[in-house]
Amino acid sequence: MPGLYHSEDIPKNISRFCSSSLNFKAQSTENTSSFNLKLPKELQPLMANPLPEITEQNGTDQKKPKLEKEGGKETDLRSTALQAKARLFRVVSYISGDMKVYGEWMKERFLVFQFFDWVLRGVAQVMFVNNPLSGLIIFAGLLLQNRWWALNGFVGTVFATISALILRQNRGSIAAGLYGYNGILVGLLMAVFSAKGDWYWWLLLPNIFMSMTCPLVSSALASINSRWDLPVFTLPFNILVCLHMVATGHYNNYFPQVLIQPRTSLPNLTWSDIDFALLFRSVPVGVGQVYGCDNPWTGGIFMVALFISSPITFLHATIGSAVGMVSGLALAAPFGDIYFGLWGYNCVLACIAIGGMFYALTWQAHLLAVACAFFCAYLGAAIANVMSVYGLPACTWPFCLSALTFLQFTTETKTIYKLPLAEVTYPEKNLDKFRKMKKAEKAERLLRKKNEEAAQEEGEKKRQLISGNREKPLLLENAKADAIEIQMEAPEDDLNEETPESHPSEGQGE
Amino acid sequence: MPGLYHSEDIPKNISRFCSSSLNFKAQSTENTSSFNLKLPKELQPLMANPLPEITEQNGTDQKKPKLEKEGGKETDLRSTALQAKARLFRVVSYISGDMKVYGEWMKERFLVFQFFDWVLRGVAQVMFVNNPLSGLIIFAGLLLQNRWWALNGFVGTVFATISALILRQNRGSIAAGLYGYNGILVGLLMAVFSAKGDWYWWLLLPNIFMSMTCPLVSSALASINSRWDLPVFTLPFNILVCLHMVATGHYNNYFPQVLIQPRTSLPNLTWSDIDFALLFRSVPVGVGQVYGCDNPWTGGIFMVALFISSPITFLHATIGSAVGMVSGLALAAPFGDIYFGLWGYNCVLACIAIGGMFYALTWQAHLLAVACAFFCAYLGAAIANVMSVYGLPACTWPFCLSALTFLQFTTETKTIYKLPLAEVTYPEKNLDKFRKMKKAEKAERLLRKKNEEAAQEEGEKKRQLISGNREKPLLLENAKADAIEIQMEAPEDDLNEETPESHPSEGQGE
Amino acid sequence: MPGLYHSEDIPKNISRFCSSSLNFKAQSTENTSSFNLKLPKELQPLMANPLPEITEQNGTDQKKPKLEKEGGKETDLRSTALQAKARLFRVVSYISGDMKVYGEWMKERFLVFQFFDWVLRGVAQVMFVNNPLSGLIIFAGLLLQNRWWALNGFVGTVFATISALILRQNRGSIAAGLYGYNGILVGLLMAVFSAKGDWYWWLLLPNIFMSMTCPLVSSALASINSRWDLPVFTLPFNILVCLHMVATGHYNNYFPQVLIQPRTSLPNLTWSDIDFALLFRSVPVGVGQVYGCDNPWTGGIFMVALFISSPITFLHATIGSAVGMVSGLALAAPFGDIYFGLWGYNCVLACIAIGGMFYALTWQAHLLAVACAFFCAYLGAAIANVMSVYGLPACTWPFCLSALTFLQFTTETKTIYKLPLAEVTYPEKNLDKFRKMKKAEKAERLLRKKNEEAAQEEGEKKRQLISGNREKPLLLENAKADAIEIQMEAPEDDLNEETPESHPSEGQGE
Repeated sequence: MPGLYHSEDIPKNISRFCSSSLNFKAQSTENTSSFNLKLPKELQPLMANPLPEITEQNGTDQKKPKLEKEGGKETDLRSTALQAKARLFRVVSYISGDMKVYGEWMKERFLVFQFFDWVLRGVAQVMFVNNPLSGLIIFAGLLLQNRWWALNGFVGTVFATISALILRQNRGSIAAGLYGYNGILVGLLMAVFSAKGDWYWWLLLPNIFMSMTCPLVSSALASINSRWDLPVFTLPFNILVCLHMVATGHYNNYFPQVLIQPRTSLPNLTWSDIDFALLFRSVPVGVGQVYGCDNPWTGGIFMVALFISSPITFLHATIGSAVGMVSGLALAAPFGDIYFGLWGYNCVLACIAIGGMFYALTWQAHLLAVACAFFCAYLGAAIANVMSVYGLPACTWPFCLSALTFLQFTTETKTIYKLPLAEVTYPEKNLDKFRKMKKAEKAERLLRKKNEEAAQEEGEKKRQLISGNREKPLLLENAKADAIEIQMEAPEDDLNEETPESHPSEGQGE
Repeated sequence: MPGLYHSEDIPKNISRFCSSSLNFKAQSTENTSSFNLKLPKELQPLMANPLPEITEQNGTDQKKPKLEKEGGKETDLRSTALQAKARLFRVVSYISGDMKVYGEWMKERFLVFQFFDWVLRGVAQVMFVNNPLSGLIIFAGLLLQNRWWALNGFVGTVFATISALILRQNRGSIAAGLYGYNGILVGLLMAVFSAKGDWYWWLLLPNIFMSMTCPLVSSALASINSRWDLPVFTLPFNILVCLHMVATGHYNNYFPQVLIQPRTSLPNLTWSDIDFALLFRSVPVGVGQVYGCDNPWTGGIFMVALFISSPITFLHATIGSAVGMVSGLALAAPFGDIYFGLWGYNCVLACIAIGGMFYALTWQAHLLAVACAFFCAYLGAAIANVMSVYGLPACTWPFCLSALTFLQFTTETKTIYKLPLAEVTYPEKNLDKFRKMKKAEKAERLLRKKNEEAAQEEGEKKRQLISGNREKPLLLENAKADAIEIQMEAPEDDLNEETPESHPSEGQGE
Repeated sequence: MPGLYHSEDIPKNISRFCSSSLNFKAQSTENTSSFNLKLPKELQPLMANPLPEITEQNGTDQKKPKLEKEGGKETDLRSTALQAKARLFRVVSYISGDMKVYGEWMKERFLVFQFFDWVLRGVAQVMFVNNPLSGLIIFAGLLLQNRWWALNGFVGTVFATISALILRQNRGSIAAGLYGYNGILVGLLMAVFSAKGDWYWWLLLPNIFMSMTCPLVSSALASINSRWDLPVFTLPFNILVCLHMVATGHYNNYFPQVLIQPRTSLPNLTWSDIDFALLFRSVPVGVGQVYGCDNPWTGGIFMVALFISSPITFLHATIGSAVGMVSGLALAAPFGDIYFGLWGYNCVLACIAIGGMFYALTWQAHLLAVACAFFCAYLGAAIANVMSVYGLPACTWPFCLSALTFLQFTTETKTIYKLPLAEVTYPEKNLDKFRKMKKAEKAERLLRKKNEEAAQEEGEKKRQLISGNREKPLLLENAKADAIEIQMEAPEDDLNEETPESHPSEGQGE
């Protein structure tokens, strides 16, 4: 447990200066989160990017030397170019990924600022991004789309986070925005599908009620999904928005919904009518539709937000949206739906989830992500047709169901590695972890092999000694030296103790 | 294990005089149920009020002294008033709660009488009440409403119980009526929704078939829900009645159902038309609708039956019905539906389940129960709209789903304590257990703390002894005395061994 | 573990001459499968008839002596009649059951032949039959019905099996055809319900896509169902065909489906119109409808295929189809539907599954199978009505849900014994195992009893020795001799270590 004996090494600003005001128990939260084992098992499935502290502990021992090294570097560097590059790299490391350093720094601030950080992370978590800057950019995109929608989304996130605090959910999860992302979707989509138009202020009432129910439903679903080490994705949002929409329906005096009806005639489909510019534009629109936005600029802004945090996420979002568009064409969907991005948004989410987020990004996992996007598009058409019977949109049910299916599936190959839910952070870091694990594993295997050989030879040597016959002492020495060398190559292996064979779902099968 | 060394203390009439006729194995059943551990795990989720014997064991050691005390009291008492009060209290204790004493006394009777007891308990178990007297009163209420419906309900309960015996289900669960309550609902609601009108005798055939399937479906669902320590509620009834209704449908020659269709136009809603008398009356009607009855007197009788067994249950039933009515008004429901109690019955059940039945009744749990009632009302509207597509009523799906969600949710606060399913009895007793547990826990914590202090001081004393410096021996003595005193205060702690931290779902997570 | 010390006894042709070409790791697969414990837990629920090797190991010790005995018999036998009978018996044993010997022999052949074997087993596995000969006969029946459908079914099986190989699923399961049976159903039913008519070649595209998704969905479902030791049945087929049909729907330009609509008027039902010949014919038609075939000859051929592999399966298929027909009459179904076998096919499957396949065939289990068939028919009507709202057929959802319910249910009686999923093979063998287990158990119980008595008497003897009183030494000797004799009677008890009390779902409850 590196977290135990290195605790004194943790920079003071991280572990000590906790905001002791407001009876927040931040210290105890931190302590709890230092050790994976203490984390309530039920909450883990919720954590796409669990606690900054968890990953913190793993990174502590490397981080300190790195900081020192950097300090040393700065004095040694002669060329300004190199210096600038290093600085740039550092700046990028501050704003990319999950902005851990910023998160730590935030802990010293006032609760209001912290809360704002949580809300922004919640805004971005819809796309599995645990990054307040991305959240801010996404929120800007929402404002560009429609200010009333953005307001509803904001109210949803805020009240979902407040409700999670009231219901005493895991502080680390709240801080990662994991209780906010369903809230923003609930708020946004209730506004989008309301037939009363913009600025119908009464809508805020069911919005607040449903947002506040989010953490409760999330927690309940997490208790179930944790049995299979699965996340809850946007299931709470799907459940609650569908619940609201079908409870009120189109024929309601207070909260009517837009009218959605099943298709009852053959759509007119002439391939000559196709507009390739709109088809191309449907890729960013598809990304935007994750938040219910049809403005291509908004979609573009979202893509920028994704790129800042994680280029791999950005890449898979783009691929997903394109796959959705192609699937729509293949399944004879009306072109209007494709242009409007309705075929893209589920595939975007599914492709991100499988491609690097919950699986380590090998090329097999990448292919699986593309397959999942295709499956998701098919499922999307199916669910849209089923839901239209009740006057409901498809929401993100297709994404949830397809991603859960692809995460639940097991295989005997080791190149498709599903990360334990508690260790999921963001694709780049996940990949890094996976590689280190592989390396450590390889080194260990080699070492064991050499040791065995050495032991064999030693045994032989003894026998030879007895028979007075000494020949191969050098070989043994070589073997030992090799083993040590290999072990030196993989010193960053903070995952040393973990065996890659312990596939979570296999372990749980017992 | 108090059950082990106190076994000789169990009154003879309880453990010995088992009806050995009819090869009933009552003795072995009793033995089995003496130890919680031996209970088949799969059956526990079914047990709202599991076996009288289980709770018996916990209560054994206290009960005997209580009886002795009471015996002693009677000779000592001088004023007749006090004596009358004590007698009244005892009479009340005989007919309230789960009527354990009566249940034990029943074990010596003929099987037919026992069977009648089980059926009556089954009638009341719809409302989580394990009390034959309440069952009798509820049945009287049903007769008042409609004798054909009452007959169908009776047939349903009887055949469900018989089927459970044939399928060799747990005898304790059968005796608690846990295999009967789905039967009565199946019988009643099949009669209520039949389009052939009253006294269509052929209806008894599917009624008997479906009632007899109840225990099987109950058992299967219990196997699944037991993984999360959740009860099955009225899910078997929901499944089987929906199955029957949708299998035959409105357009059937033999068993047609009343026509239920989705709403296709805006209801006319003018607030000036509202009738406050009917609105007020909808509270008892809502309680009555749990059994499909719209007669307010029947609803009132049901409320009396609840009050007899458990005032807390009665209170939450009333609150739930009121919450449902308010929700109906808030969501623009047609007034007719609200007056008819359709918005109330699910909330009644949900509010009872969360408020004191499966959670210990703290004020946080009470608030949670009210929140659950609101959520349930919302869900009720949603499910009613969804089901109407298939020509089905909402049944009690909304109650089941909302209560399961609220039971499945986890929190870090200790004031919301979910009782292990096997220990659930009735709200008053649950609360009593919870308080004792808390007390015992507190005493233990204090004792440990004092012990630690004492140990510290003893260590200090030794050091002081060595240095020849003696000053604080009295403090230590005081600490010890205090600890003993505290332990004396909580002697009834039959739950001493249990740690409150062992939240069932956490333990099962491994 | 008999598999361990008898490994040298395994005939060489089975364990050694594995096709080492094509990097197939057949050897390692075999090693893995030798020991139940090493099998990936997630895959077991898929295995109706898991690996030939598993059952092989259990059979090893008996098989060798049997072969020797047979060798010895042939020299001893004098009458040709007896010899012919023995030969016939041996021939039957080669083609009946799961054709284990043939499967072993196949392992030495080229991969293409092996693959063909897997595909044929997959064709038969729809009916829980792990037998390539049955598969071939069934395929002939399909060709008789419709060659385009047969082609689609073949393509489905082939691509599902290929996909399972690509996705690195368990080799033993693939070889048992457990990844093929969903494929054939997907292929067949997509062709049956296509509104474009026969030989619409584009249909092969979604067919291949859906077939290749089968193993993935199977694996995901197996991960979930394994928690309750339940098989996945044809759930992947149901999910994927419904997905395709509802995604495209009737109003689609490329892949339109036949129009299915809910019933909106009372069917005209006059009992005088009933045609008893057609009613009788509906029994084989019902069996044929498992593969979507309405030709009674095809159904008859399928029944022959069933009889070859397992007469018990054949019997229950017939009973199931008859029960479905009766249920249809009881629930006022249009006669056309009954003649067309729509009421039969689900009951056929449900009756097979419960009657001897997953439960050991006691007469209680047989009654349960008949009850399950009735329940399944009821459920079939319900699901058909629900699905028609979306323009979908009932598929085999009713079978899956009813069989899962009846498998999930628990009872305290020991005469209904659910086999652990990994030990399920075919009804005759399952029954054999169950009987041996019972026998071994009984012998053990008797032995223990005698030992106890002996111990008691020995204690008494000692006491008597001390008091110089010797009387009953002979009794003790008798008891010992008896015990040995009983143990000798049950020497085939390869299941000796297993306790029958270890009901799988109970064990998993911890």
